[in-house]
Amino acid sequence: MTHVLGQNQYGKAENRIVRVRRDSTRHEIKDLNVSVSLRGDFEDVHRTGSNANCLPTDSTKNTVYAFAKQHGIESAEGFAALLARHFVENTERGVVRSARIRIEEYAWNRIPVANSPSPSGSSAESGHSFVRAGQEVRTTEVVYDGERFRVISGLRDLVVMNTTDSEFWGYLKDRYTTLQEAYDRILATQVTARWAFGFDGRDGQEQPGWNDSYQEVRRHLLEAFADTYSYSLQQTLHAMGTRVLDHRAEVDEVRLELPNKHHFLVDLAPFGLKNENEVYFAADRMYGLIEGTVHREGVTPVIPVS
Amino acid sequence: MTHVLGQNQYGKAENRIVRVRRDSTRHEIKDLNVSVSLRGDFEDVHRTGSNANCLPTDSTKNTVYAFAKQHGIESAEGFAALLARHFVENTERGVVRSARIRIEEYAWNRIPVANSPSPSGSSAESGHSFVRAGQEVRTTEVVYDGERFRVISGLRDLVVMNTTDSEFWGYLKDRYTTLQEAYDRILATQVTARWAFGFDGRDGQEQPGWNDSYQEVRRHLLEAFADTYSYSLQQTLHAMGTRVLDHRAEVDEVRLELPNKHHFLVDLAPFGLKNENEVYFAADRMYGLIEGTVHREGVTPVIPVS
Amino acid sequence: MTHVLGQNQYGKAENRIVRVRRDSTRHEIKDLNVSVSLRGDFEDVHRTGSNANCLPTDSTKNTVYAFAKQHGIESAEGFAALLARHFVENTERGVVRSARIRIEEYAWNRIPVANSPSPSGSSAESGHSFVRAGQEVRTTEVVYDGERFRVISGLRDLVVMNTTDSEFWGYLKDRYTTLQEAYDRILATQVTARWAFGFDGRDGQEQPGWNDSYQEVRRHLLEAFADTYSYSLQQTLHAMGTRVLDHRAEVDEVRLELPNKHHFLVDLAPFGLKNENEVYFAADRMYGLIEGTVHREGVTPVIPVS
Amino acid sequence: MTHVLGQNQYGKAENRIVRVRRDSTRHEIKDLNVSVSLRGDFEDVHRTGSNANCLPTDSTKNTVYAFAKQHGIESAEGFAALLARHFVENTERGVVRSARIRIEEYAWNRIPVANSPSPSGSSAESGHSFVRAGQEVRTTEVVYDGERFRVISGLRDLVVMNTTDSEFWGYLKDRYTTLQEAYDRILATQVTARWAFGFDGRDGQEQPGWNDSYQEVRRHLLEAFADTYSYSLQQTLHAMGTRVLDHRAEVDEVRLELPNKHHFLVDLAPFGLKNENEVYFAADRMYGLIEGTVHREGVTPVIPVS
Repeated sequence: MTHVLGQNQYGKAENRIVRVRRDSTRHEIKDLNVSVSLRGDFEDVHRTGSNANCLPTDSTKNTVYAFAKQHGIESAEGFAALLARHFVENTERGVVRSARIRIEEYAWNRIPVANSPSPSGSSAESGHSFVRAGQEVRTTEVVYDGERFRVISGLRDLVVMNTTDSEFWGYLKDRYTTLQEAYDRILATQVTARWAFGFDGRDGQEQPGWNDSYQEVRRHLLEAFADTYSYSLQQTLHAMGTRVLDHRAEVDEVRLELPNKHHFLVDLAPFGLKNENEVYFAADRMYGLIEGTVHREGVTPVIPVS
Repeated sequence: MTHVLGQNQYGKAENRIVRVRRDSTRHEIKDLNVSVSLRGDFEDVHRTGSNANCLPTDSTKNTVYAFAKQHGIESAEGFAALLARHFVENTERGVVRSARIRIEEYAWNRIPVANSPSPSGSSAESGHSFVRAGQEVRTTEVVYDGERFRVISGLRDLVVMNTTDSEFWGYLKDRYTTLQEAYDRILATQVTARWAFGFDGRDGQEQPGWNDSYQEVRRHLLEAFADTYSYSLQQTLHAMGTRVLDHRAEVDEVRLELPNKHHFLVDLAPFGLKNENEVYFAADRMYGLIEGTVHREGVTPVIPVS
Repeated sequence: MTHVLGQNQYGKAENRIVRVRRDSTRHEIKDLNVSVSLRGDFEDVHRTGSNANCLPTDSTKNTVYAFAKQHGIESAEGFAALLARHFVENTERGVVRSARIRIEEYAWNRIPVANSPSPSGSSAESGHSFVRAGQEVRTTEVVYDGERFRVISGLRDLVVMNTTDSEFWGYLKDRYTTLQEAYDRILATQVTARWAFGFDGRDGQEQPGWNDSYQEVRRHLLEAFADTYSYSLQQTLHAMGTRVLDHRAEVDEVRLELPNKHHFLVDLAPFGLKNENEVYFAADRMYGLIEGTVHREGVTPVIPVS
Repeated sequence: MTHVLGQNQYGKAENRIVRVRRDSTRHEIKDLNVSVSLRGDFEDVHRTGSNANCLPTDSTKNTVYAFAKQHGIESAEGFAALLARHFVENTERGVVRSARIRIEEYAWNRIPVANSPSPSGSSAESGHSFVRAGQEVRTTEVVYDGERFRVISGLRDLVVMNTTDSEFWGYLKDRYTTLQEAYDRILATQVTARWAFGFDGRDGQEQPGWNDSYQEVRRHLLEAFADTYSYSLQQTLHAMGTRVLDHRAEVDEVRLELPNKHHFLVDLAPFGLKNENEVYFAADRMYGLIEGTVHREGVTPVIPVS
């Protein structure tokens, strides 16, 4: 009995690339992890052992490095778009119908250098020495199908905490409910955010300024987290998504995954001490997990539920 | 401007539970990691700060542990179905419209005991001492929407290797192709598999024997990997999926994610040595990543692309 | 002001190597992670920028792969001894005074094959298809200083659990003690064990049978864990170490690091249920950590405290 | 046959604690991971099952949280010293002879807040909203034996990169050497540093300003990495250690573990491109590992080799 070959894709994952620009003594670096995935006419590869339609994953890797040299890397999104279009448009016999490029980007800061003051007199930065900045990771996923692009950018591992302005009470109680209501609690989470752009590249539409957009979206997420007086992590999530849509016209949809990193007030009464919201146990697991999408009216959401 | 609240869900993730059955001196254990996710009428929770419709994630956690006591845990799938149905049918005011339960299960073996021979004379096993078996993890995801169940089971971190019977040649070559053809290579991968069942629980339909089904699917995946003379990892993937569908009537769809864990033949010529497929460097990254679905004709695939 | 350069060492770490023996259709594999560390006359390398005494780490890596071809890999310990001796004895100008080789070994099982019965009629195993066995890792560290070897072998990530025969009570109570005494608890741990051998290779002393020794030490650790009726994890640790020394003459010293993987009985009383040692929450952190050495009289312990 | 119980210790590991100071609307937080290890008179605990001398690990955990309330947490080192002294001096019957406290500290920054300008007119920071800063971790280990303290502080996961000013040539060549000399390479590493203090707390000696000391040591490590024109990672290591000793009188010894995170220049010649030190593959494993100690003359090094 013959079965159906459904959705399939392949490519080279996690190509780690560091690209250095040396136009001056002030070097610029991009530190990326690029994953390629091709969809197309690969029925024979699966069924017959013929690889005639199979561009090796090794070739896709080579392309990533060669393109980094030829085209430079202005932004993760722009680089991904370039690669995705290449695989669809230039692979022989049109076997690649759609390409998905995923990129993680790791941020670096310049190391301040004490002994070489800058011309302006302020403390100087090294031109070629860098230190990894933060633990958060910038992400993007670009799909090109020969007609249009779909771009979903994001970040993960952005860890934030409010030490007050968070309550949780008035909730639905069932027979398994034992939780005490909280009128002043720590709210902490490790943000995974993805956001989709209106841009699809048709009709000569220009790409947004990806890097500025990223910095601004990140800033609005942080500010919304800090500013929101919260009655639930859901409410905070909604405020964060809404804030981005309100301020960034290029973004149509925001999806957030917010683990509630529980900080439990430690009971110090047995030791004759009163814990006035000062000493917390930071738990690993289990954790609440709050996920949700906010999008513009009239827009069809495209960010998948994970 | 008001935006739309799209797909949203919440619950308690990664409830680690060990359930011991002590009916005799031969204890039985189940070691699970249970994640609950509820979808429903939570608009107000997000927008207004009213938690009237919000069953606390803490209550969903309590339910997991209480159900383990009340109902026991015969299989991950059966336990997940019980929980999913409970949240939809018993939560007040019908606010939960759909529930998704994900479970990871960790396997244990009994420790052989030298000095206490079994009645049958064979080497004895301890009744209460266990050692973790393998590194692979059994997974399931059950969704219940008030009408029907959707069950997707699977495994991950099953690491396998063929030291021969694998070739890769005759592939499409573009200007970025430098790969040498291989006529005898190592093929190694870390299997992530998910498979969907025909079972949906309507009309009094009985649940399959989940544990037997799991063992058999796992066996067929392994055998197909071992038996297939492979011209590409895609071909092996297809053989693995097909083998499961051929042998397990309860399964309608199989999706596999197979990283190509590259083993590169080390060039020993500079040292006057000939490497006759004996010495390999096992690389971490980058890696090929081959993904695909095989399903029965007439069935609509439900396993999402990750 | 000149400071002193103290202990220093360098080399190539984590050389991942898979070695296949193809003498028959029944292949044999060794899957290792080899780390080289050289100590010696490297003062100038650190101070002056002269690399005249610096054998590149890349060369040490090449040596690992070349030796795997030339000498095969009978055991991790034997292979490590060969490498350690080479670096000390063959590096030019005697700059390497001592070499330390650390190896992790990953175990594999053969995949059973249904359709190709073995000559003996029993269920057959594949000759070239393997599946990773367990999650535990075999370890060794061999140091050679030009005169003698010091061998410390071990394992890690061996996860074990007793569902009964464990108590904990009668302990010292201070003003911060709130723990309830336990008369029947789960005892679970993730064993890290290291053991030192009497072997030092002088006077033509022969190497022990490393592979047999490993299997037997592992067996005795498991049996002692299973057999010991325990009043503390310390007591279990002591029993495990003692059992190895009692049964394995080649071992002089055993050190164990046993995290107490707490399994907390869940309070089900609020739900009208009685938890008769059946339902546990498996916690991640914090955890008890019990460490200790047992050694033969007259032997000076050599395994460092970590 | 009776064997000897050698070095042993136990305690509660990885107590995760967040301490909030709420003296004003500008909260202060400390985020720590505290591990306790007690050494002493525990022979019976191991041999006889008597726990009369065994202070439960649970009590040591409670002590950590209670002390955080009672004494606050000015610095990781100060808090560790307080705990270590307590366990030795206050545990009944003098059973604890020595205590080791290890702490990891995670840094947080304040989230800038757009809409609430600070009195000074500069951009404002939130008083209660924080974002995790960097991925590096501050560490300390304090041992107290009833007479004196030994303090070893440090950091890990500080990732740094120089895109030029690094060469490697003129090295020793053996028959396994194939490495090409490099006259301009990327030098990148993930710093693990530990440094020991002269402070031992006897004769009323005052504790150094631990927090200032940490910031300054970290700064000197970064500056030395950035400033050193390097002919080997060993040379950079030596410069980093020396710089700390030259500038920080309270530090007697510095030990560094520097994995050489290789960045390999990608060969683009097959694609007709010239790679002028612009495009690198960032490898995971294998990696060079360079370790060494620099200490003041007359000081006996105390930081163990790992």
